[in-house]
Amino acid sequence: MKLKNIAFWCLLISSLGFGLGAVAQAAEEPTLTSLQETLTEKTVALDTVWVLLAGVLVMFMQAGFAMLETGFTRAKNACNILMKNLMDFSFGSIAYWLIGFGIMFGAGNLFFGTSGFLLKDTGQTFASLDWSTVPLECKYFFQMVFAATAATIVSGAMAERTKFIGYIIYSIIISAFIYPIVGHWIWGGGWLAEIGMWDFAGSTVVHSVGGWIALTGAIMLGPRIGKYNQDGSSNAIPGHSIPLATLGVFILWFGWFGFNPGSTMGAVSDIAHIATTTTLAAAAGAIGAMMLAWKIFGKPDASMALNGVIGGLVAITAPCAFVSAESAIWIGLVVGILIVLSVIFFDKVLHIDDPIGAISAHAVCGAWGTLALGLFAQDVFAPGTTGNGLFFGGGGKLLGAQTLGVLAVFAWCMIAGFLLFFAIKKIVGLRVSKEEELRGLDVGEHGMEAYAGFQIFTTE
Amino acid sequence: MKLKNIAFWCLLISSLGFGLGAVAQAAEEPTLTSLQETLTEKTVALDTVWVLLAGVLVMFMQAGFAMLETGFTRAKNACNILMKNLMDFSFGSIAYWLIGFGIMFGAGNLFFGTSGFLLKDTGQTFASLDWSTVPLECKYFFQMVFAATAATIVSGAMAERTKFIGYIIYSIIISAFIYPIVGHWIWGGGWLAEIGMWDFAGSTVVHSVGGWIALTGAIMLGPRIGKYNQDGSSNAIPGHSIPLATLGVFILWFGWFGFNPGSTMGAVSDIAHIATTTTLAAAAGAIGAMMLAWKIFGKPDASMALNGVIGGLVAITAPCAFVSAESAIWIGLVVGILIVLSVIFFDKVLHIDDPIGAISAHAVCGAWGTLALGLFAQDVFAPGTTGNGLFFGGGGKLLGAQTLGVLAVFAWCMIAGFLLFFAIKKIVGLRVSKEEELRGLDVGEHGMEAYAGFQIFTTE
Amino acid sequence: MKLKNIAFWCLLISSLGFGLGAVAQAAEEPTLTSLQETLTEKTVALDTVWVLLAGVLVMFMQAGFAMLETGFTRAKNACNILMKNLMDFSFGSIAYWLIGFGIMFGAGNLFFGTSGFLLKDTGQTFASLDWSTVPLECKYFFQMVFAATAATIVSGAMAERTKFIGYIIYSIIISAFIYPIVGHWIWGGGWLAEIGMWDFAGSTVVHSVGGWIALTGAIMLGPRIGKYNQDGSSNAIPGHSIPLATLGVFILWFGWFGFNPGSTMGAVSDIAHIATTTTLAAAAGAIGAMMLAWKIFGKPDASMALNGVIGGLVAITAPCAFVSAESAIWIGLVVGILIVLSVIFFDKVLHIDDPIGAISAHAVCGAWGTLALGLFAQDVFAPGTTGNGLFFGGGGKLLGAQTLGVLAVFAWCMIAGFLLFFAIKKIVGLRVSKEEELRGLDVGEHGMEAYAGFQIFTTE
Repeated sequence: MKLKNIAFWCLLISSLGFGLGAVAQAAEEPTLTSLQETLTEKTVALDTVWVLLAGVLVMFMQAGFAMLETGFTRAKNACNILMKNLMDFSFGSIAYWLIGFGIMFGAGNLFFGTSGFLLKDTGQTFASLDWSTVPLECKYFFQMVFAATAATIVSGAMAERTKFIGYIIYSIIISAFIYPIVGHWIWGGGWLAEIGMWDFAGSTVVHSVGGWIALTGAIMLGPRIGKYNQDGSSNAIPGHSIPLATLGVFILWFGWFGFNPGSTMGAVSDIAHIATTTTLAAAAGAIGAMMLAWKIFGKPDASMALNGVIGGLVAITAPCAFVSAESAIWIGLVVGILIVLSVIFFDKVLHIDDPIGAISAHAVCGAWGTLALGLFAQDVFAPGTTGNGLFFGGGGKLLGAQTLGVLAVFAWCMIAGFLLFFAIKKIVGLRVSKEEELRGLDVGEHGMEAYAGFQIFTTE
Repeated sequence: MKLKNIAFWCLLISSLGFGLGAVAQAAEEPTLTSLQETLTEKTVALDTVWVLLAGVLVMFMQAGFAMLETGFTRAKNACNILMKNLMDFSFGSIAYWLIGFGIMFGAGNLFFGTSGFLLKDTGQTFASLDWSTVPLECKYFFQMVFAATAATIVSGAMAERTKFIGYIIYSIIISAFIYPIVGHWIWGGGWLAEIGMWDFAGSTVVHSVGGWIALTGAIMLGPRIGKYNQDGSSNAIPGHSIPLATLGVFILWFGWFGFNPGSTMGAVSDIAHIATTTTLAAAAGAIGAMMLAWKIFGKPDASMALNGVIGGLVAITAPCAFVSAESAIWIGLVVGILIVLSVIFFDKVLHIDDPIGAISAHAVCGAWGTLALGLFAQDVFAPGTTGNGLFFGGGGKLLGAQTLGVLAVFAWCMIAGFLLFFAIKKIVGLRVSKEEELRGLDVGEHGMEAYAGFQIFTTE
Repeated sequence: MKLKNIAFWCLLISSLGFGLGAVAQAAEEPTLTSLQETLTEKTVALDTVWVLLAGVLVMFMQAGFAMLETGFTRAKNACNILMKNLMDFSFGSIAYWLIGFGIMFGAGNLFFGTSGFLLKDTGQTFASLDWSTVPLECKYFFQMVFAATAATIVSGAMAERTKFIGYIIYSIIISAFIYPIVGHWIWGGGWLAEIGMWDFAGSTVVHSVGGWIALTGAIMLGPRIGKYNQDGSSNAIPGHSIPLATLGVFILWFGWFGFNPGSTMGAVSDIAHIATTTTLAAAAGAIGAMMLAWKIFGKPDASMALNGVIGGLVAITAPCAFVSAESAIWIGLVVGILIVLSVIFFDKVLHIDDPIGAISAHAVCGAWGTLALGLFAQDVFAPGTTGNGLFFGGGGKLLGAQTLGVLAVFAWCMIAGFLLFFAIKKIVGLRVSKEEELRGLDVGEHGMEAYAGFQIFTTE
């Protein structure tokens, strides 16, 4: 605390206009100890700059989700989905500060933390994060934007029919409890970490959690009016702005360069490798999904390519630091196939209405990425951590731990999600009225229109 | 200058293809002195990387303002408001380089700088910024994007009725003179700094300045046609794209992580605390404004929540480095109330037509944030600077200085603003013709439409 | 590799929950050697953080191009142009990893590299990049986003009439071969570097390459239906969303602060000077173009001002590190004139239909910027590199080399471009059918609409 404040004093005192300027600096002879102290201080500053900027990029992913979800839904519900994105971040950031961060990283047991609420730190509270040199609030900031990501994923699958008050309640509960508990298991020194499960930046911790809860929400809500016909066939309900959706995907891709490389939580040159695997997997996901959609539907559908990017990013999130560039491309290409089939499966077979494909992109691809770590990991990229995966001679032990992790998180999210949405349904109601849904949630929930002055068709 | 250029030489010479590669490096034995020199050089590089990237984030806020203002106004005026945002940054950056930076930070008297135009530096010229190690042009860049922010705020309140030539003139005058003079008072070693007023990142310096000038502009222009009825009641004129407005708010929130933490003007780990207070205040502002709007209007209005974010960010800008996370939340919650009441007050009571709520968000919340510093500051966060505020046992002295600063800046901006707009009115005219206003400024001022090919209602 | 991994081990091992915390750190006494090693390691980390973040900003320019091109074209072709932007980045990043990077920077001859495919490095392979300390994958990442920029420029001039399959093919060929060959000449130790041509961040390498290939594409395609009348006069075909186009320009401006300052490929304080010249030239470009358009057309046209920003940014890209702030403003002002006249010339005189003005902004302004380096360069900014240009007493030698470079790249791109598009035309066809063009490429190529639910005029 002291060392850094000396610089800060100088900064502020002189900004008072005392005109002292850069006086104190370096008047004395350097010693080995003084140099080392300065070097340590500057290393912390460098780490903080990196992790904070990475966190800021992740924060901007909220804009990406907002644009993606808005673009892929109808104009009459645009304000609602935008407000949802804005408010889940607002409520989530405070809820995670109050409670979630303590549950996730505070000292406790193998299942959840029981200390560290409001970032109160006795010095031992956050031992699970001692490996990073950055200040506690930098850890909070970086982890908070992750929590907000998990919460915001859910809304995509529940779009165009959920009561606004329901959004707010579940955002708080997910950010404060459901997400941090999984986080504790894997990143906070919990039981999944103990059995050797790895998830570098959160394919499971963040994306699958969001995705599986989204699944429970979509099931509890039922499909939008007009989505499925009597004969069981499904109608496409096209989104109202592909430009906004595409912008959203570019913003997400951009932000993911904070999400994955930033998860080093320190400035190390490995971030270059992580950025490389991240972008190659996303590119391969887009290519794979576009190709398969072209083959199946006869035309290269933009929505599928966009979801391919997201799926690729989600899948590489767990293994990004542990696999080669070649493996990243393979992981992405598999995503391309998986996401197209998954979207079709949930829609046509299961009749679960997920307006933007959040379940396929986040839950399914998140599970795939977590398992892919068990297949493609190579000891050389982070020696002494994951060891080799199945495809590189490491046997099935790692894959087993990954599988167990995927299943455990699936089970937890399904149970917690159903309980959550059941409670909301009973207490305040989960779904808007039929009239409101037809008219649009913008007018019904918020008393306003998204595009005043534009002519909009209102077919349902 | 020399040290850094050695690296730069190597870089460029070898890029010539001479194939020398990384030759020179580290052939010699290190000494204490050589290590310290290298460490100092790298510290400057780290500081420069941080401040420059922070400045780049602030620059991107121009896109945020452009989207916010465009989204909250009508489609027929979209090109005009966009062009305004583009051109105020363009003219502003050059005007600030030519004149503004010298007035703000150049050596001079307690009221304005009288040297340092075109960044000419005799070595003593910019003593008021000597506390930061970064190169002069980095200081210029970071301060320039702040100046452009102050200038761009004004246009929101004057939207949909101002002549384009008027925008250009006032952008130049604000960036070159009005804003830098206030900046000199508080950040350039001027009289308000002397009496102990603090404004870490510019609630008053940037936002209130923009906001109060906006107020004079809105008064001088009068309301848009159709805004107020004969009986004194007010009509809502809804914006044409809530998605763009929301995107704008997310971009602004994103950019504010350059605005506030970057105001350290050096890489220090305190940036984590600043980012934390910044985001919590914004979140609390959104929550507070949404809640109150819900209570007053019966529905959670999106515009109010969006303005709550901006208001929260504006308010925390002054105290972000000096207050606790808890205090930041309180400051934000008060913003939530303040902004809703302020918007209603200016609209319904004073009949001042501010299309996007710029006066409330920037002037009122900026004043609140500056005063809040006097209430919530705690010595522990930046020892030896502000001391404790009123709520933490520091007595009323700090609050007194803050109040004086708020009032002085208010007075200066009102006088300068009225003179400025009066002069523009006399010389080139301030407001477009009634016909042009009804038809839209896009066609009238720019000979084009924002959405060619879309059907747009033209009600006024 | 070892040093950095120690930190990484600690990081990951402890994240397993072993609770070791920050143990190892600094138990031993520091020595001169240990301090120097740590300092070197941290310098690499700092350089990597900077270059990676700069690359991430450049990556985001893809969103900028997507929004700019979409906004400046018609609603019926929006999905197509968006998909193109998404897929050229996806294919390009993999193609450049597979082939392009090796051709550009791998050891080979004066004309192209013949090694280093898939980033395979024998230790001598990438000697042309040894001047930068960052890891190889960081170099790849930074250069890859440049390659993708060159490829994406082309689509703007070919918008609204090109077959989607054609886009994909040329994106791959440009990223893998055409662009990297020019890159090798100038940045990879090739013949233009040998003769003393300079291009700091790619006015010629990136922008002119994209722009000249765009020219060949536009010629080979012919104009859009309805663009030119029988009498030879030209019709304006206005873009459908100036807000998106403006957002795109702001994103590009934002990303350019990675493009130019990041081209130091290391953290040096010169980045401040580069950012300053960059923004001043862009501002001057906007002002110049707006003024001239105002004079010629009677109104300040938004499209011209937006293109003025792009042109200014393109032009300053080559000389940004070598010229003064004053010179940057002059370079930008000339752009303002050049781009307006160039757009008129290509449209009215040559009847080459370039929907977004890509040829003028990238090829013409890129050539201008490369020549301007020969006029305005001053030895003082990067001693021992370019020397002084013509206007600063350096004689015409530098200008001669620049001119030769511009001409050589023009010739190469025209030849390669024509061959490329001729081949595509013969093999899969380059242009969509007349029916599809009239109906829009969104439905024809992708089976979808960009704005489902909005009323859109379909005049052609």
